[in-house]
Amino acid sequence: MDRKILLSESDIPKQWYNLAADLPSPLQPPLGPDGKPITPDMLTPVFPENLIEQEVSTQRWIDIPEEILDILYRWRPAPLRRAVYLERYLDTPAKIYYKDESTSPPGSHKPNTAVAQAWYNKQFGIEKITTETGAGQWGSALAFACKIIGLECKVFMVRISFDQKPFRKFMMSVWDANCIASPSSETEFGKKILAEMPDTPGSLGIAISEAVESAVKDTTGKTRYSLGSVLNHVMLHQTIIGLEAKKQLKMVGVDKPDIVIGCAGGGSNFAGCAFPFVHDKINGADIDIIPVEPSACPTLTKADFVYDYGDTACMTPLLAMYSLGHAFVPPPFHAGGLRYHGMAPLVSQATVEGLLAPRSYHQIKCYEAALTWAKTEGFICAPETSHAIAAVIDEALKAKEEGKEKNILFCYSGHGLMDLTGYDAYLSGKLTDYELPDEEMDKYSECLKDLPKPPKNKSGKW
Amino acid sequence: MDRKILLSESDIPKQWYNLAADLPSPLQPPLGPDGKPITPDMLTPVFPENLIEQEVSTQRWIDIPEEILDILYRWRPAPLRRAVYLERYLDTPAKIYYKDESTSPPGSHKPNTAVAQAWYNKQFGIEKITTETGAGQWGSALAFACKIIGLECKVFMVRISFDQKPFRKFMMSVWDANCIASPSSETEFGKKILAEMPDTPGSLGIAISEAVESAVKDTTGKTRYSLGSVLNHVMLHQTIIGLEAKKQLKMVGVDKPDIVIGCAGGGSNFAGCAFPFVHDKINGADIDIIPVEPSACPTLTKADFVYDYGDTACMTPLLAMYSLGHAFVPPPFHAGGLRYHGMAPLVSQATVEGLLAPRSYHQIKCYEAALTWAKTEGFICAPETSHAIAAVIDEALKAKEEGKEKNILFCYSGHGLMDLTGYDAYLSGKLTDYELPDEEMDKYSECLKDLPKPPKNKSGKW
Repeated sequence: MDRKILLSESDIPKQWYNLAADLPSPLQPPLGPDGKPITPDMLTPVFPENLIEQEVSTQRWIDIPEEILDILYRWRPAPLRRAVYLERYLDTPAKIYYKDESTSPPGSHKPNTAVAQAWYNKQFGIEKITTETGAGQWGSALAFACKIIGLECKVFMVRISFDQKPFRKFMMSVWDANCIASPSSETEFGKKILAEMPDTPGSLGIAISEAVESAVKDTTGKTRYSLGSVLNHVMLHQTIIGLEAKKQLKMVGVDKPDIVIGCAGGGSNFAGCAFPFVHDKINGADIDIIPVEPSACPTLTKADFVYDYGDTACMTPLLAMYSLGHAFVPPPFHAGGLRYHGMAPLVSQATVEGLLAPRSYHQIKCYEAALTWAKTEGFICAPETSHAIAAVIDEALKAKEEGKEKNILFCYSGHGLMDLTGYDAYLSGKLTDYELPDEEMDKYSECLKDLPKPPKNKSGKW
Repeated sequence: MDRKILLSESDIPKQWYNLAADLPSPLQPPLGPDGKPITPDMLTPVFPENLIEQEVSTQRWIDIPEEILDILYRWRPAPLRRAVYLERYLDTPAKIYYKDESTSPPGSHKPNTAVAQAWYNKQFGIEKITTETGAGQWGSALAFACKIIGLECKVFMVRISFDQKPFRKFMMSVWDANCIASPSSETEFGKKILAEMPDTPGSLGIAISEAVESAVKDTTGKTRYSLGSVLNHVMLHQTIIGLEAKKQLKMVGVDKPDIVIGCAGGGSNFAGCAFPFVHDKINGADIDIIPVEPSACPTLTKADFVYDYGDTACMTPLLAMYSLGHAFVPPPFHAGGLRYHGMAPLVSQATVEGLLAPRSYHQIKCYEAALTWAKTEGFICAPETSHAIAAVIDEALKAKEEGKEKNILFCYSGHGLMDLTGYDAYLSGKLTDYELPDEEMDKYSECLKDLPKPPKNKSGKW
């Protein structure tokens, strides 16, 4: 019995899967400031047209260009691994498979879309990409992709991370990206914020606004902006994860997993792993598909399906998604990649359609799961990934109680080697759990009051 | 053409290779303080008898217990990879293969022996292992192994690293090791040093002395000491690297590589990758086998083959090896794993027998090579590994000049994700090169003057 199930290069998926083609109801369109659906051309100052085409596409399968595969071959196909040591420890009849996305150069699933986005930008004649990053996972993935493809990369990094967590910044420098602290004096919005709050630690919302402004104001027309999650084309690029996993499961005789699990912040690793199985579920397969989010940022489990802005400064179109409200200020917890106020529209609509069964966990339970993982499987996972592992352990123990030989698949979205301060805080007893109080929820959702609402669908679910 | 050449679990080597069986002259024995060869029982307070047996063995093949393989399967067999992106960049006819040892949980080749040593200690009834660590690569590997196998682990970490580089310490905590700064007040030797030099940054020599004292003075007899390099049994455990690589090269039709390269500090990753090919060379194969060391610590390239102590405090037996002298204080440079004053006796004797062609490189050249690697292959290598890559680039360019399709194999000993401060120092222009001046060499080798000398061998080479 091999613990690693490996595809050869020739077996890599040649097309991405687009869930928008298969959702029971059509995906709700993004709206402009006037409340009317935006047209693709309204996005052209921000994104190249070939990516906008993917963003609005309802084509089920979209070809992956050979040149993109040639870059992904640095680490893809990624191994599907069986967590036999954890299985033994839990003494469960369940078989636990995980798709190991930690093997990419920056150590997470993020480069799957960073490479694709950089490549399409380059094809479109773009020379420079701007983006924002919190703790640096996404910024380093885009830095890597831009370096390989030959684009300039500018990363606005939230100041507090820039100052306190220099390692991701060093990583970006290795790949020649220009990483600066946000708010910065390089944009009008940054200057405004600095004037009002010179000592602000910054926020992802501010950094997004700076990155968009910086792209849009380049009068040469050779700069565009890139986002690492949330958008449809990002989910699309990530489906290579689940498509590979499906082939690998078949290699060990698993026609379909019983349970698919992924952590969910903006939704990209979850979607990447799960959407090919959501496709099967829509077509009748019996699969529990579980996005796991932090209790401190309970988008899918506590918020409503609404129209909201993607950023704090309300510069983006309105997206139909679960959202705590764009004014949401997440409490400090270590899974930096799971602190987004909203959720990818595709993940949101799959949830509202009843295809997904989201749940939330507190961070201490997740760190416990991460420690169990490190002491059985041996590897140190990212704090984000620990949310998926906590759910996997629960499901494996449930299978044991029920005496069922379930096949569980989860997405191991990244390693935690750049996140060891979080482990130290947990091990030193410095972490506490935080449940978003209802009155805080109400305060943040106040900003949604005057925004349009998605129409009710036929099933009456939303 | 697959860029990853993968063995299945069933193809993992079932025996380690012991070069001591094949060296043209018998390996020179370690000597006691009286200048006479030590007997195995003199080592029993420090190491368990099963490991001492391996240390003195001249048996060519030694079985790897199935229980050890079951632990190694977490990441082994390790991939053999082809560096096609670097090949393209260099436009070389050479084929560059590398054995990727960065895929272990702590990120280097070190767990290959950490797991074996922990397992043999456990078999022998030992309950606790002590060791020292510099920057933390070895300490974290032993912490991992002890956790998986169920042993207590105590790591004496050089104080300056303990204070300035907390991430490896955090990693050790994840695996429950007790990591303390050395010098400590837990040993007599530590207390003595602290009394004399309360502000000392510590050194590997002091930490070794503390770890040995701590093991030996445990009156229950249930504690032993463990060393991560230099010793024969360590080299033995690492040969799984080269044995796997040999099978993988055959899978792509390479009967033998033309060149084998590894960085060399104490010698363990180099030996692990190279010794199975040294075996072939002894049996007539034409292979250039190149250990690469830093110019700032030029053991094989500038020092003599002598008898010297393994530690600064002269507590160990005398080993026949290349040595700069146990009083050697290495200058500060970032490849922490390459700062040892001596070299593994097996690597030393293979060198003196003319089987190896050592060379040395300055650190700036090595960081340049690391950056070239990061911008072509995409991955960030350990500063130690960059020495091997620098030599690979030189050899690939030489093959281009000569128009020869050479097959180059090297050991990718670890990733550099925990070493990004070194990259930052390089990128900020803060690094300088350092050539050990002759008068410094003379000063350090002074301490070797009154020690016994290895006998001349038949070939007259030493």
